[in-house]
Amino acid sequence: MKALTHFTTEEIEKARRYAASIPPPDLDPRIGALVNDLIGRVADKWTMMVLEVLTEHGEVRFTRLSKLVDGVSQKMLTQTLRQMERDGLLVRTVHPVVPPKVEYRLTALGLSLGSAFCGVWVWAAENLDHVERARQAFDGIASTGGR
Amino acid sequence: MKALTHFTTEEIEKARRYAASIPPPDLDPRIGALVNDLIGRVADKWTMMVLEVLTEHGEVRFTRLSKLVDGVSQKMLTQTLRQMERDGLLVRTVHPVVPPKVEYRLTALGLSLGSAFCGVWVWAAENLDHVERARQAFDGIASTGGR
Repeated sequence: MKALTHFTTEEIEKARRYAASIPPPDLDPRIGALVNDLIGRVADKWTMMVLEVLTEHGEVRFTRLSKLVDGVSQKMLTQTLRQMERDGLLVRTVHPVVPPKVEYRLTALGLSLGSAFCGVWVWAAENLDHVERARQAFDGIASTGGR
Repeated sequence: MKALTHFTTEEIEKARRYAASIPPPDLDPRIGALVNDLIGRVADKWTMMVLEVLTEHGEVRFTRLSKLVDGVSQKMLTQTLRQMERDGLLVRTVHPVVPPKVEYRLTALGLSLGSAFCGVWVWAAENLDHVERARQAFDGIASTGGR
């Protein structure tokens, strides 16, 4: 399964270390607000998809990326890539050839965010059936006017 | 720091187990598409915020929730809660009192998703400075016309 098998033992190990490192309870409360802000930026479907594709494929051109990131519009992909570049998650390289060739690859920071998301991918793969059943039950109740 | 200290040792342990469980490589490719769909639904700022607040506060009324989830609009909160209920992540209880009292709490599935996101919170807390510096550098280059 594409979405999950590209995690190497090292990445899994890194994700484990993330999960194991509990921060001290007396951290500056302003950091809490900043973390929320940052989470808001990275907890985004397209950011996660781009992370996944670039983790798996290395350096990729825009056109290929738009095919690999299933269902993304050109505008949304451009916006996501620019934001990820600004956050230091990826590097954009313009090759001075004709026609110009622009490639994107993850930085070490981007790769580490990919590892941090690993637990969410595994959760989704493990709980698909559970979620499907919940949806069916919910829709059944809603359609019979039970809500 | 609110955002992180509410993780118990058990939750951290659970997140570690998620990170450690590598799924077999020969999974049905349709599952990959379903995982992407599910990820698209849960990798959302407001879903993550609601998960965080309910993990920390247990059962919470709508009005209180709208104050605890910083910056959320009433419409967006209603939509997020309904989607999370449909996915089986939370339970909505209507108490037959006057005025009606509606409370929300996470299911076991919702709590497990919270644990799966643990690595992302830790990543954000650890890499704030890194991201800040990247943004400053990016904005500096952008403003001097270097792009």
